[in-house]
Amino acid sequence: MTRRKVSMALAVALSAAWAGPVSAQARPEVLVKQRQAAMALQGKYFYPIRSMAQGKTPYDASTVMRNVVYLDALARMPWDGFTPATRDIKSQATPAVFTDTAKFREAQDRFTAEVTRLTELMRKGDEASIRPQIMAVDKSCNSCHDTFRERQ
Amino acid sequence: MTRRKVSMALAVALSAAWAGPVSAQARPEVLVKQRQAAMALQGKYFYPIRSMAQGKTPYDASTVMRNVVYLDALARMPWDGFTPATRDIKSQATPAVFTDTAKFREAQDRFTAEVTRLTELMRKGDEASIRPQIMAVDKSCNSCHDTFRERQ
Repeated sequence: MTRRKVSMALAVALSAAWAGPVSAQARPEVLVKQRQAAMALQGKYFYPIRSMAQGKTPYDASTVMRNVVYLDALARMPWDGFTPATRDIKSQATPAVFTDTAKFREAQDRFTAEVTRLTELMRKGDEASIRPQIMAVDKSCNSCHDTFRERQ
Repeated sequence: MTRRKVSMALAVALSAAWAGPVSAQARPEVLVKQRQAAMALQGKYFYPIRSMAQGKTPYDASTVMRNVVYLDALARMPWDGFTPATRDIKSQATPAVFTDTAKFREAQDRFTAEVTRLTELMRKGDEASIRPQIMAVDKSCNSCHDTFRERQ
């Protein structure tokens, strides 16, 4: 493969659209554990930068940079774990995950699109637009959780 | 920040050396959960490509590409979770994690260096060198687990 082809393929691999299943044969319990792992790590790297965007902690550009790079990958990881076979495994997923799949997919796409936009702004180094975009990501998290995650 | 500065800072952010703690105030239980989450996702994305490198499943370049991109981020995520405060939380970490910290750090660095090398080879699209490098990553996983993870 030429270097140019690799770059193009990489762009595809990292696009929100390309989220095919990793291991179709994984046991449902493993799929649930893996998707919960991705969500836990999204929290690890998102909450500190949300706190910065809200002005609750000092803005640190290098932390934002690292965390956004990580989030760009993590944002794409949970979705192939919500297979019908996981429906009866205890988790915080609401029944709507498995009945309103089109709306769930839309919510995933909105979230990954907001994270992609955040990644683009972060690469440009434009702090003034990074802050509100962090809050746009937060909104897309909450919007999905409202319908597809049991209240905690 | 100029675009060039951002690129340089990004390179630093993604280097193995830059692995500062994310949330110093996180409870030990949370730190353990987060580091276990990173390990679980390393498994999700590494085992399928190891199977390809071993010739057990057909080699699929686009899956290798995606998984290596993800692993490049995941490889850097667990380490700030092994704080002394987590020593008494039940996990598979051996006591050596907290007593032989220099050797543990070396093992982490070897692993992240092998993953970084794999990422470089993947970006060049050189399949002939990607396969053995996947096995080099595997070796660095096992080498660390031999000393720092309880036998399963």
